[in-house]
Amino acid sequence: MSLKDKAAIVGIGETDFSSNSGRTELHLLIEATLAACEDAGIKPSEIDGMTKFAAGEVEANVLADALGLDNINFWATMPHGGNAGAGTVTLAAMAVATGLANNVLCWRSLNERSGRRFGQPTVGPTRMGGFFQFTAPYGLMTPAQFAALTARRHMYQYGTTVEQLAAFTINSRAMAANNPRARFYQRPLTLEEYYTGRMVSDPLRVYDCCLESDGAVALLITSAERAKDLRQTPAYITATAQGMGRRPGIMLTHLYRPDITVSEECSYAANDLWERAGVGPEDVDVMQLYDHFSPLALMALEDFGFCKKGEAGPFVESGGISITGKYPTNTAGGLVGEAYIHGMNLISEAVRQIRGTSPNQVKDVNYSFVATANGAPLNCLLLRK
Amino acid sequence: MSLKDKAAIVGIGETDFSSNSGRTELHLLIEATLAACEDAGIKPSEIDGMTKFAAGEVEANVLADALGLDNINFWATMPHGGNAGAGTVTLAAMAVATGLANNVLCWRSLNERSGRRFGQPTVGPTRMGGFFQFTAPYGLMTPAQFAALTARRHMYQYGTTVEQLAAFTINSRAMAANNPRARFYQRPLTLEEYYTGRMVSDPLRVYDCCLESDGAVALLITSAERAKDLRQTPAYITATAQGMGRRPGIMLTHLYRPDITVSEECSYAANDLWERAGVGPEDVDVMQLYDHFSPLALMALEDFGFCKKGEAGPFVESGGISITGKYPTNTAGGLVGEAYIHGMNLISEAVRQIRGTSPNQVKDVNYSFVATANGAPLNCLLLRK
Repeated sequence: MSLKDKAAIVGIGETDFSSNSGRTELHLLIEATLAACEDAGIKPSEIDGMTKFAAGEVEANVLADALGLDNINFWATMPHGGNAGAGTVTLAAMAVATGLANNVLCWRSLNERSGRRFGQPTVGPTRMGGFFQFTAPYGLMTPAQFAALTARRHMYQYGTTVEQLAAFTINSRAMAANNPRARFYQRPLTLEEYYTGRMVSDPLRVYDCCLESDGAVALLITSAERAKDLRQTPAYITATAQGMGRRPGIMLTHLYRPDITVSEECSYAANDLWERAGVGPEDVDVMQLYDHFSPLALMALEDFGFCKKGEAGPFVESGGISITGKYPTNTAGGLVGEAYIHGMNLISEAVRQIRGTSPNQVKDVNYSFVATANGAPLNCLLLRK
Repeated sequence: MSLKDKAAIVGIGETDFSSNSGRTELHLLIEATLAACEDAGIKPSEIDGMTKFAAGEVEANVLADALGLDNINFWATMPHGGNAGAGTVTLAAMAVATGLANNVLCWRSLNERSGRRFGQPTVGPTRMGGFFQFTAPYGLMTPAQFAALTARRHMYQYGTTVEQLAAFTINSRAMAANNPRARFYQRPLTLEEYYTGRMVSDPLRVYDCCLESDGAVALLITSAERAKDLRQTPAYITATAQGMGRRPGIMLTHLYRPDITVSEECSYAANDLWERAGVGPEDVDVMQLYDHFSPLALMALEDFGFCKKGEAGPFVESGGISITGKYPTNTAGGLVGEAYIHGMNLISEAVRQIRGTSPNQVKDVNYSFVATANGAPLNCLLLRK
């Protein structure tokens, strides 16, 4: 059997997104969970499955205890970084489809700005496996630095320009400016302002890098059958895929591949996703791409098949991802404009587009695509109305 | 759809079990993986799924890199402690059944004696959620201490005796004495020797507590269809279940339940398992129970339905779990006699019993039961020939 359309996302719950929540991650998570339940019309006591980021501090049993839940039938975690967002939904869909649970909560709750900041240089015996030991002594330590190397190669190989990187962010910020929940609500970015941004790691300016945010997002997944009787228009999970290429590194560290301008993660996942869904990239009406770094979002456009290899720069620059373009992208503002809830907020927006409730609503959405992470092990989802 | 008999365990690979492996956890894991592939007749390059303990240090991408694998289609982790053993198999079965992967490797690799020892007191902001802050100041910090409280209550409530606790361990050690791979090969335990054991936390003597070991176990799961054409007799995964009760604690910390002598985890999982399998405890021919602490293994016998509540002590004492008893148990020696590979070695033994290759082989095994963890969130499997 396949997972196709067996389960649906029926509830979304979010806290406010800030740089200092002033609450614990458990507190944030409870807020988001109760909001997701209210949104779906599912009682908290009906939750019998839980899937989360392996990286998240609040474990399933702690949330179950806090909410007074009894008899959780399924739980699991998705490792690595942002890929886990769509990964939690995949695990939930698997549990529902195989009868292991009925109502599965997926979440990410983090104080990523006021607490531990992922973008800071850190060292440790396990981080990035054995790879890191060879780069840290030279100061190559942060995700932005790795992304910068890839970006420079893409510019060399395909003529991608700084203005094209900027165009991705400027699009996201235009979306965010229209989204009252976004960190950058009413604050679009111009190209002139972009140039004034601090250089984080050449060619990446601060505006090419995702935000650091506090907040929580919770999603509720149930069977396609039950979804029909709930409060919201269901977002059916048509297909899911995970991608992990050769010499996979968690933090964009795959520098020994033959061609680092290709995200094997995206192309492998794309092959599976379109095959499982029975449709192709051309059928996608709106998409949310993990924009931790603008050049990697450009590569994702290419390697998922939304444009030809090397052509993402011109495609974005010419408005291909704008609200009136071929593939309206990051319609809530993405990770650079709305918030960085480790990609989980991209999924809520993908659901809102199915429901017709996005701040930048695309007309007649049938297929809504979302990828969490790229340039590193990733998970993606194709949702359907 | 259900998972019933959709997937099978077709390969098992183990390193030697020791108190000081002298190798890294990655090295151990590669040994076990290659052994599992050889056992099954599946090439390493065919591995396209990976599920592991969230607690394990070797991440999927690191193993994939080390083995030169390409295009891993599915990966996920199971959190908490020993429950993850059977949990990794559940995730693998789900992936195979839903078409997300074809050949899934599950593993645990750890230097638990020469490296970090789980039984030692540790503190930290996340361990055991918010519960631990209330017990650590009083010196209540280790799993053995929590298990001792439960044991004492079981003794008070049902008349369970120290000799009955001893009987569980003595049975496991008798099995281990016959297993050349066991840490306690050719070293059975007598009741007299048991009494000389150091008191760890009254009433638990050192022999009531599992070993601390270095080693790795890897399992290969594939579809029931492919399993037929491979080298070994397949162990079909007939049913799986996870159990998490009220106020769930990872480390046996559920002291605020109405009755701490009941493992709600076991009874909840049992309900699901027998219903999904369509058979009951009386159909089980051989079982492997997570014997981190003997009193919790006794409780598991009761709460999974293998004997009546409060009667596990007399049942074990009268030979009910011996090789000639109603339910031969821990036939490789369990976690007190063979090794503590975080419960993963219980699963290999459950598979060997299906194959007919156990050092203490039970005749005509049709159903082989294995539970990893109990008295805390747990996963269990019913395997079928």
